[in-house]
Amino acid sequence: MSELLLNHLGGQWRPGTGAGTALFDPVLGHELVRVDATGLDLPAGFAFAREQGGAALRALTYRQRADMLGAIVKLLQANRDAYFEIATANSGTVKNDSAVDIDGAIYTLGIYAKLGAALGEQRFLLDGEPAALAKDGAFQSQHLQLPVRGLALFINAFNFPAWGLWEKAAPALLSGVPVVVKPATATAWLTQRMVKDVVDAGILPAGALSVVCGSSAGLLDTLQPFDVLSFTGSADTAALLRRHPAVAERSVRVNIEADSINSALLLEGEAPGSAAFELLVKEVVREMTVKSGQKCTAIRRVFVPQALYAATAEAVSARLAKTSVGNPRNETVRMGALVSRAQRAAVQQGLQALKAQTEVLHDGAAHALVDADPAVACCVGPSLLGTRDAAGSDAAGRVHDSEVFGPVATLVPYRDAAHALQLVRRGEGSLVASLYGSDDAALADAALELADCHGRVHVVSPAAGAVHSGHGNVMPQSLHGGPGRAGGGEELGGLRALNFYHRRAAVQAAPGVLARWARG
Amino acid sequence: MSELLLNHLGGQWRPGTGAGTALFDPVLGHELVRVDATGLDLPAGFAFAREQGGAALRALTYRQRADMLGAIVKLLQANRDAYFEIATANSGTVKNDSAVDIDGAIYTLGIYAKLGAALGEQRFLLDGEPAALAKDGAFQSQHLQLPVRGLALFINAFNFPAWGLWEKAAPALLSGVPVVVKPATATAWLTQRMVKDVVDAGILPAGALSVVCGSSAGLLDTLQPFDVLSFTGSADTAALLRRHPAVAERSVRVNIEADSINSALLLEGEAPGSAAFELLVKEVVREMTVKSGQKCTAIRRVFVPQALYAATAEAVSARLAKTSVGNPRNETVRMGALVSRAQRAAVQQGLQALKAQTEVLHDGAAHALVDADPAVACCVGPSLLGTRDAAGSDAAGRVHDSEVFGPVATLVPYRDAAHALQLVRRGEGSLVASLYGSDDAALADAALELADCHGRVHVVSPAAGAVHSGHGNVMPQSLHGGPGRAGGGEELGGLRALNFYHRRAAVQAAPGVLARWARG
Repeated sequence: MSELLLNHLGGQWRPGTGAGTALFDPVLGHELVRVDATGLDLPAGFAFAREQGGAALRALTYRQRADMLGAIVKLLQANRDAYFEIATANSGTVKNDSAVDIDGAIYTLGIYAKLGAALGEQRFLLDGEPAALAKDGAFQSQHLQLPVRGLALFINAFNFPAWGLWEKAAPALLSGVPVVVKPATATAWLTQRMVKDVVDAGILPAGALSVVCGSSAGLLDTLQPFDVLSFTGSADTAALLRRHPAVAERSVRVNIEADSINSALLLEGEAPGSAAFELLVKEVVREMTVKSGQKCTAIRRVFVPQALYAATAEAVSARLAKTSVGNPRNETVRMGALVSRAQRAAVQQGLQALKAQTEVLHDGAAHALVDADPAVACCVGPSLLGTRDAAGSDAAGRVHDSEVFGPVATLVPYRDAAHALQLVRRGEGSLVASLYGSDDAALADAALELADCHGRVHVVSPAAGAVHSGHGNVMPQSLHGGPGRAGGGEELGGLRALNFYHRRAAVQAAPGVLARWARG
Repeated sequence: MSELLLNHLGGQWRPGTGAGTALFDPVLGHELVRVDATGLDLPAGFAFAREQGGAALRALTYRQRADMLGAIVKLLQANRDAYFEIATANSGTVKNDSAVDIDGAIYTLGIYAKLGAALGEQRFLLDGEPAALAKDGAFQSQHLQLPVRGLALFINAFNFPAWGLWEKAAPALLSGVPVVVKPATATAWLTQRMVKDVVDAGILPAGALSVVCGSSAGLLDTLQPFDVLSFTGSADTAALLRRHPAVAERSVRVNIEADSINSALLLEGEAPGSAAFELLVKEVVREMTVKSGQKCTAIRRVFVPQALYAATAEAVSARLAKTSVGNPRNETVRMGALVSRAQRAAVQQGLQALKAQTEVLHDGAAHALVDADPAVACCVGPSLLGTRDAAGSDAAGRVHDSEVFGPVATLVPYRDAAHALQLVRRGEGSLVASLYGSDDAALADAALELADCHGRVHVVSPAAGAVHSGHGNVMPQSLHGGPGRAGGGEELGGLRALNFYHRRAAVQAAPGVLARWARG
């Protein structure tokens, strides 16, 4: 049997007492390690996190906690090669794709280290200026933001074992809130290793960072009213979490990031071969293939004027055809594996369902695998589908409401600008839409029209062509989350991320009391 | 049979098709009016609100919408006498208590009219400054706040038929979001009349303000992903709402204000008869008796150093004894009725339960009713209970976790400052705590210790004695809401209230695109 990874809870490393669940190499098929959370004393462990970890973190200032994030950055950079090895083995990703996860995590931690240092030697935040509640300001209201006196439980997704941990833990720890992470089992290894390295290095106070690998059974039952819960995963699981007594009855604050049928939209008036057209084509191919399309921000629907349908189909397909798929250890391979046989089956099933309402413009099945056994490897080629004409775009309901979590996108022609916006909105709330065009005014107007149903609108004009940050890359400076189908959550967005880990309160008092907290 | 009040939905006044539910005078016992929502076409009505009302509101600027709030203020002021008559008849409140609801509503609307005017001729809000995502700022992230393109459904409580409507509707309408209000049946009359006056005056676009009186059946089923839901009421109902598919599956944003066991705390070092002591006594009596204690912000627990237990009991009881209870039409009456026989029974039941763990310091049953028939009127005298000693304060679990929604409070002696804070925190999240003392530093420190588990901390020092806004008065400038048992919501807080009715998004683009929205 393979190594059983330990859990870290209550300030101690503990094995589960069960047989464990195996993690596999999705390309070669063999077992790597096992995880198990059976028999852990969750109530005691959570209490330790709240009482020891939380108190120790809250005793520090934002600047001191930011320094810890900076120390974590250095440690993770020093161990970077080991993380890439785990990613190759357990996620089946090529180096560039592993970097999205691992270097993305380090970059995000670094940004919060910098933002946190600027908050200085404070232990809570003033929120706005005092408001007068009596004549001459003799009685005033001052809002504060205070760290929640609970823990932050993260129930994370399989596709970002590194970034998914740190994009949440960075603002939580900076806020003074202890973290318990439950990584998705399929890729829990990298999360567990990073937590182990940070805990063993003694960077954080005892109880500030815990990891439970395996089943999530009992975790929610252990939450108390001042804890917070952040979940990334399916809409079905999200609904279960929202109905749990911890959330429904004990008002545990919850952040959800769920399904998202993201869009890329080429505005009207751009000719085939124009700069905006080429930027769209390049970005669509990148988004379809990075991490084999296993990004919640990946482009799933590509909207173009109907006159450009054929030209776009041709240009995207030509680039997809050059994408080599297979074993990420082979340097000619551009796209590695899906994470598991289960995901491979789900993607193929989703693709079949979409095909019933679309035509195939580029067939992923035509890609021969490089250095990988099709009977074992969880690799699939990229597939571009299309809805043929504007009437088909309206009729193809599944295109607008089912997320196929792999290298699959659908080309959707539109009649005019109003039709395009209407079709994009059929996603019913998404994480991101990207816009491509050369008219700044038209781009700004379209961004405004779509901003209310997206967490982020990414505008690619020729001026941004060489420097834009990518449709699917989540920048810590910008909000990550989306309304409706996307779960209604908000993460990142610079210091806005701290809101989730703080509790706002108004203190009403005479100026002599409020003056105790005067800005330095 | 009494008059059947009409519902306003889909831009039309419509009667329910059922027999209706009667509203009663809680002092005299007779039927006043009936309400009924049977047979309304909720999907069509909600669609009208979203599509007609929402679009018309969003086409206006914040300044234009603020002007509408100003016009509503004038209209409500002109009709103020009629509202007081309805309050006397349907809520059984004395004039001062009706004013908390009616004048509180008008004041809150006025504050939002002023705040909104300052937002000027914009239709969305810039949120923060652009953040650089590339060297030399060649690609940037700008956050926006955009009105949600849905409706706001309010499911409101019986105790504030006027203020409960407008404290939510003012920020919603200012944000450009249409409102559907479902008032609590027992006191729906005043809400319905105010909506009727505003709709008939043509102040708002069609579909901007709707009212459904009677059962809430079907309302949540009709919500869509971009709608928002604001609920004030019991924790049990709140849990049902959170589990509803609209919230659990469709990510409808929800704000809950539920139970709250609020506290008043006299700090150590204050002698009986000192300014701080007297301010506490006065405020406790006011909070117990205003609206017969039917305020979610009312003081339920009064914490004093154990050496001051007897003196406080005596001082509060002496004032309570002078409180005349009965028919609010009699000018000698200071405290009117509870809202219904059902509430009267619930208060008496809750009082019985508390008495099992406390002693009676002032017995409300000793109050003879003025001009009211005890067999008919829903009047109860104010009762002060006490836990005798510090050990009793720890043992009396019900005191810390059950909200008796009437003129009932419990005096709770504490050993030292740490014990006091620990006892206050046993409320597990409350709307408000008030602190009384004369040492500004000690008051500020205690406020910080309690702010994370309260939406508001109200500090009464001698300097604030003559000008403070009152423990239980919700000022629109300050946050209203609280974590944990209090439901975890946030309302008011000046312009912070607009967050709930806006959706935040990041737009990432080259500066030429973002410059379209440059600050004026």
